[in-house]
Amino acid sequence: MRFTRATVPTLKEKPAEADVASHELLLRAGMMRSVAAGVYSLLPLGRAALDRIEDIVRDEMNRAGALEVVLPILHPSEPWMASGRWQAYGPEMMRLKDRKGTDFCLGPTAEEIMTLTVGRTAPSYRDLPLNLYQIQTKFRDEIRPRFGLLRGREFRMKDAYSFHTSDEDRDRTYERMREAYEAVARRCSLETLVVEAPTGLIGGDVSHEFMVISDVGEDLLVYCTECGYGANAEMERHAPGRRFGSAGDEGLEEVHTPGMVSVEEVSDFIGTTPEAMLKCVLYVVSAEPLAVFVPGYREVSEPKLERALGTSDLHAMREDEREQFPGITVGFVGPVGLDGIPVLYDLEVKGAKGLVCGANRPDYHLKGVAEGRDFEAARLADVALAVQGDRCAECSGGLLLAPGIEIGQVFKLGTKYTEPLKAYFTDEDGVARPMVMGTYGIGTTRILATVVEQHRDEKGIRWPGAVAPMPVNLIVLSPENEEQSRAAAGLEEGLAAAGIEALVDERDASPGVKFNDADLVGLPVQVVIGKKLADGQVDIKLRHSGERADVPLGSAVQKVQEALDKVV
Amino acid sequence: MRFTRATVPTLKEKPAEADVASHELLLRAGMMRSVAAGVYSLLPLGRAALDRIEDIVRDEMNRAGALEVVLPILHPSEPWMASGRWQAYGPEMMRLKDRKGTDFCLGPTAEEIMTLTVGRTAPSYRDLPLNLYQIQTKFRDEIRPRFGLLRGREFRMKDAYSFHTSDEDRDRTYERMREAYEAVARRCSLETLVVEAPTGLIGGDVSHEFMVISDVGEDLLVYCTECGYGANAEMERHAPGRRFGSAGDEGLEEVHTPGMVSVEEVSDFIGTTPEAMLKCVLYVVSAEPLAVFVPGYREVSEPKLERALGTSDLHAMREDEREQFPGITVGFVGPVGLDGIPVLYDLEVKGAKGLVCGANRPDYHLKGVAEGRDFEAARLADVALAVQGDRCAECSGGLLLAPGIEIGQVFKLGTKYTEPLKAYFTDEDGVARPMVMGTYGIGTTRILATVVEQHRDEKGIRWPGAVAPMPVNLIVLSPENEEQSRAAAGLEEGLAAAGIEALVDERDASPGVKFNDADLVGLPVQVVIGKKLADGQVDIKLRHSGERADVPLGSAVQKVQEALDKVV
Repeated sequence: MRFTRATVPTLKEKPAEADVASHELLLRAGMMRSVAAGVYSLLPLGRAALDRIEDIVRDEMNRAGALEVVLPILHPSEPWMASGRWQAYGPEMMRLKDRKGTDFCLGPTAEEIMTLTVGRTAPSYRDLPLNLYQIQTKFRDEIRPRFGLLRGREFRMKDAYSFHTSDEDRDRTYERMREAYEAVARRCSLETLVVEAPTGLIGGDVSHEFMVISDVGEDLLVYCTECGYGANAEMERHAPGRRFGSAGDEGLEEVHTPGMVSVEEVSDFIGTTPEAMLKCVLYVVSAEPLAVFVPGYREVSEPKLERALGTSDLHAMREDEREQFPGITVGFVGPVGLDGIPVLYDLEVKGAKGLVCGANRPDYHLKGVAEGRDFEAARLADVALAVQGDRCAECSGGLLLAPGIEIGQVFKLGTKYTEPLKAYFTDEDGVARPMVMGTYGIGTTRILATVVEQHRDEKGIRWPGAVAPMPVNLIVLSPENEEQSRAAAGLEEGLAAAGIEALVDERDASPGVKFNDADLVGLPVQVVIGKKLADGQVDIKLRHSGERADVPLGSAVQKVQEALDKVV
Repeated sequence: MRFTRATVPTLKEKPAEADVASHELLLRAGMMRSVAAGVYSLLPLGRAALDRIEDIVRDEMNRAGALEVVLPILHPSEPWMASGRWQAYGPEMMRLKDRKGTDFCLGPTAEEIMTLTVGRTAPSYRDLPLNLYQIQTKFRDEIRPRFGLLRGREFRMKDAYSFHTSDEDRDRTYERMREAYEAVARRCSLETLVVEAPTGLIGGDVSHEFMVISDVGEDLLVYCTECGYGANAEMERHAPGRRFGSAGDEGLEEVHTPGMVSVEEVSDFIGTTPEAMLKCVLYVVSAEPLAVFVPGYREVSEPKLERALGTSDLHAMREDEREQFPGITVGFVGPVGLDGIPVLYDLEVKGAKGLVCGANRPDYHLKGVAEGRDFEAARLADVALAVQGDRCAECSGGLLLAPGIEIGQVFKLGTKYTEPLKAYFTDEDGVARPMVMGTYGIGTTRILATVVEQHRDEKGIRWPGAVAPMPVNLIVLSPENEEQSRAAAGLEEGLAAAGIEALVDERDASPGVKFNDADLVGLPVQVVIGKKLADGQVDIKLRHSGERADVPLGSAVQKVQEALDKVV
């Protein structure tokens, strides 16, 4: 493939729209172009890399016994109404009407349509389990599309749905799919953490996410370095990692703390640390106030609070709401003698002593406060977020916190969709019962961007072999030199005969331009045909390690094969 | 692949929604299910057949030097406004607004987005020609979605776009793509006619359609059995095929024809034939009346009339419009002494004599009318449709008319899109000029339905080898018989080792059910394991020809391979 015919419009400068490295590199390396916010065209090399990824996904799905189908992109509203998600999805769902005024959405996922499709085949217990997947374009009208393919509005995803006679049978497929997802990540050269995850709009009881740790990740992960435990921060469980309060039995003492409301101000003033502070965060829950107490060095986790209270109708109390609750001494709320407001304590407050907290009167705090003596933490829940240094609740190893990119998620669904959509199977007694489901999604365009995010240097992309759009960049330094041009043609042919495709850069451009583009585009193996050809030598360089060697032209094909074995 | 695991929900009865044979068979053979009017889910076997077709298309595109890309489905309105097609497409274009109120459509085709994408790469003459294609889902909100995948609202299409420095260069790619399309049709076992076609909403100067003759075709084709000439009826050219008028020099004579207005009534009454009649059809063109005269045995072709007049603002005069044009003796309009209405004659009227036509007074016709003597056919155009028996305008061979299914169309586009969208290239003098384009579409879901339409019998589908979802249906008549079950497992394994996938029907069902489903699903080779296994024999049957043979189990793999060589 000639560079000039391959439609690889590289860019020297960073495009203004690029907000993270993978976005910048995919644009600069001529792999894609923007069409609208969060909507992209993939050019030939970008398309080829996506194909490699989708082939890997397809291969692992087929190995896991899943069958490929194609569901439509246009989804009628009825099944979404039946599941309750037509409303629940809100403005993230892209909707339209056809010429007759009938409502449709552009599938953001396909639980409803797949359940409907399988339900209509009226399976018997002998036809189950079933596991069907598709690799299809999906649509979500993100409020802030960004990071290129990492959070687009039109994206490609492999989504699979399994149907079972029982939870136990579903669990077996769930495990098999989990292994398949780990294999996909491994083959795409992505290190992933599998973490416990919230089930969100998809629903079900249990879910795991496949996360790649990255600075541009939009999720926060908590994971153990010893036992492999990991969870989305919304779901994490931790044991206390630092001392909270103090060991001594101090007496209760009131301290004048004029105008001091933050944990740092008060602990500095008193001469202690946030580890001794009992922090109060005021919430409004279904129009009622709630005081939430957590250790001073922790934050309240709203997802945990939502789960503890069983409602998502809550938010931190705003300044303009304070006058609605006049009995509360904002900034100085403490548990001792607190009245007129419901209270919730983080688990760690139980039994703590030597604490500093608000005195429930302006400009005063209490020190030496002990739970059980000065107040009773009657209503307890796990509502605080982990911090670096916490211990694992599973093995007491050390917990780490890091941002992650979610590339996939799997769910144990139960009958959330099969009941309302009447997707029944006939059991051994001839009775119709709703099928038990699992659902499994992995984003192929997101994997593409994540691979670039994880495999790059300051010069450009460094494609792992299995995902590279092509294996070889063949650079001809002086294409007007007949010997070089002939050698390039011969080598391209020799590589092709060995099944190795090469991007042949025979442009009328300086060596610098060609070297820079080769590093930017990032194909795994570079072969340079230049002056050394006079001595029968070409130069082979590995993009990933920078390793290079002069080899005789005659053995170049073999050397390229050996080099590819190293990077694939 | 076990039948019970393959999700092939066959149906005994014809579903009410099925309106043509391919629609019925794809539903009954468990290959697809309907989701909404003109919107389908493809089940595993339907998906597999579509994959075979798309692999063939991809292979031929790559051979033709085209590069694969992925354009988005969501198209912003701006480029469609720039080309003028945002309006021109009308209600067939599916439109939606995003959460910010920005207009998008779901791409019905992608000239605008591809032109924009390539235009932004700012190519030089050295980067051209370029030929980019995608295989992508498309959307058209058909007023009457019908015939299953033949005219759906969501469908899959391969669309390619080529970019050139000149018309001559574009013509070379156009020819290459035309050959590629012929190869696709051939490999899919479809006999096609390549016919001259109107350019419609896509535009450009020249277009060809790839048509498969079929009773369910929605286009009318005119083609020559001798020279290969063919055209969509909207575009056809024909030489006169029958005598029009008479040879003799009769005198003009008025005949009383009370209440007779149709060609048949008048010609019967006078004792002549429609070949002697000069038929008048009244039109309203941009609010003005027009009398169009054609031979009595022909129809006016509205597409031809539109082209002749250079406007599409025309329709046959309705009864309720007659009073707007009081000077016209409707039913008795003739060219002799006609006043107060513009007139257009079909080419064939020139020089005709011995004609019968209206006398421009109620209940009277004229006979013995001669053009040139009694009236002058001053304004002539080709406005009549061919009939069976016309002669070819190219070679004077016989013309045939038949309905056809359009599976593909190619267009010479010129600069219709590159000018408004400013998709320029830099020529050898450094001057920016709009690129010259070609565009090429072929419907892959439509090919799928057409293959079924063309390859079937009363029992079901008869898949051609290259497009079959799988090659072999392995039928185990008594799966509870251990010997049969073991033989089936061994044969499935032996076939798999030879790269041949089999659908293994080991259901607890009667032989009749299995044979009927095998014929309905229509895989090319059936292997039956039944009682003859006691003598070491299995039965091999070719679905297409019905040919069958008993073969020893030990040589079954080899016999299946030989059978497949016959059908692929």
